[in-house]
Amino acid sequence: MRVGLDVGGTKTEVVAIDADGVIAGRVRMATGWGPDAVTRTIVDGVRALGAEAGIDLAAVRSVGVGIPGQIEPGSARVVHAVNLGVDELDLAAAVGPQLGVPVRVENDVKAAALGAFALHGGAGTMAYLNLGTGVAAGIVAGGELWRGARGAAGEVGHISVDPNGPVCRCGQRGCIEAFAGGGVIAERWGRSGALPVRDVFDAADAGDAGAIELRRGLARGVAAAVRVLVLTVDADVVVLGGGITALGDRLLVDVVSELGASAEASAFMRSLRLEDRVELLPAGSPAAALGAALIGAAHDPEEALAHG
Amino acid sequence: MRVGLDVGGTKTEVVAIDADGVIAGRVRMATGWGPDAVTRTIVDGVRALGAEAGIDLAAVRSVGVGIPGQIEPGSARVVHAVNLGVDELDLAAAVGPQLGVPVRVENDVKAAALGAFALHGGAGTMAYLNLGTGVAAGIVAGGELWRGARGAAGEVGHISVDPNGPVCRCGQRGCIEAFAGGGVIAERWGRSGALPVRDVFDAADAGDAGAIELRRGLARGVAAAVRVLVLTVDADVVVLGGGITALGDRLLVDVVSELGASAEASAFMRSLRLEDRVELLPAGSPAAALGAALIGAAHDPEEALAHG
Repeated sequence: MRVGLDVGGTKTEVVAIDADGVIAGRVRMATGWGPDAVTRTIVDGVRALGAEAGIDLAAVRSVGVGIPGQIEPGSARVVHAVNLGVDELDLAAAVGPQLGVPVRVENDVKAAALGAFALHGGAGTMAYLNLGTGVAAGIVAGGELWRGARGAAGEVGHISVDPNGPVCRCGQRGCIEAFAGGGVIAERWGRSGALPVRDVFDAADAGDAGAIELRRGLARGVAAAVRVLVLTVDADVVVLGGGITALGDRLLVDVVSELGASAEASAFMRSLRLEDRVELLPAGSPAAALGAALIGAAHDPEEALAHG
Repeated sequence: MRVGLDVGGTKTEVVAIDADGVIAGRVRMATGWGPDAVTRTIVDGVRALGAEAGIDLAAVRSVGVGIPGQIEPGSARVVHAVNLGVDELDLAAAVGPQLGVPVRVENDVKAAALGAFALHGGAGTMAYLNLGTGVAAGIVAGGELWRGARGAAGEVGHISVDPNGPVCRCGQRGCIEAFAGGGVIAERWGRSGALPVRDVFDAADAGDAGAIELRRGLARGVAAAVRVLVLTVDADVVVLGGGITALGDRLLVDVVSELGASAEASAFMRSLRLEDRVELLPAGSPAAALGAALIGAAHDPEEALAHG
């Protein structure tokens, strides 16, 4: 049995998977704020799998954690997890001794990419595009995450696609994230709500010009990211996940329509059939928690042997 | 001994490498036009290694060919090599029996990427950006070409970076190639010359406004491709090759200056140190021929064992 946690800004999702990678138990809880509370959330989350989901904790062999921050390569040290109030935290040291099993840590988008790959059948090349507060991708081929040289792989949100576009929080102009980041859209929309992007879509449907522009920008940004991912790494499929994808088909229809526009203009783009290669992560899929569990398993020498 | 050929639109470069990958012989010849003449060029090229470079042809164990066209996956069938007058040609069938050794074929940019990786020391992750008539990249990690799902990997030339940019030959607007493709630049410059881009640079130095705009566009396009490659696959280094790089440091200085502008605007981009990660392929390096030789070697079961 392997445990994976997706430690989000407000809630933490915990899953246990069996030796075949099938989810055997799943719980959710609120995420604490700051290093100590995050550590406690993880320990409590694993224990809750026993208490609430009937998982035999003595059978757990590894714990993987997906977390919204940078991970120092080759370590379990999280830095700059600003949404969790964590500046620096060595999770292996903090939770390993309490849990008594090896602990592995991965950036949450990369964990979700691995989980989405497994949920999708685990074959070929996939790009997972996370549409949350920011925009970032994870690339998986043959079950392995593409890590790149220095941790910038998948940072497609900061590719500029319009020199006259809006200024991005990173300082450049016209970044994909400046069009499609949930944080930017909420800020520009300027009204509170549980999911501001949904309000933007509703207002756009009702004819609000500002909302129509924001909604169009979102679709343009996502379509640009899909094109970047296919024209660079030639992913079989680009799976969209993250908070904004709660909009479901309303989002997908817009994105497919943008992709259709470039296909109409270009026989080359048409030949890539991008509209058929973009998909939504099924609603409610615990992709990041599943991916985190797989990361824990991948580092176990016995497991690595068993899976060749 | 392995032989590799870089079959270009006007000339063909042929190299022989020894078991350590060191170049033991090198010849150049004119490329014929059409399938029969291309076949003859390859056969003559290999024989010229014996006659002109003193290579023992009996010791040649494989021939690899880099060619400017699409290669059908898993085959030696070249399609749409328009610059060679070849619509379709199975090179293994055409030249294999005459040469008596296995023949492997690869797209020339991908072959050059492998060769550039070997010339660069053969470690880490590299993107090779080819600046010729068109713009395309090859991505190499741990000595392996990233192939992607359906042959579109590295087609960064057709990523649009400006919705109001010039119309690309592919039909989209503002593609990287519409700014940085040698074909497009020559067409817009509209005056004949051996290397129109050099004339553009000279005219820009002399203050010609049209030339200054074309030159600026080239640097913008190349810088955009470098950003795409680092922000997607996080290559350690982006090596620039292809005909336009005959401009050498005049080109590199412009590109580094464009990269510097985005670094100035963005702490995030600054942290990537892109100016330090972009390099020119050394002038005269037979990267594509060397890469083609390595591709021939990689498919030999004995060699694969020897190299682990």
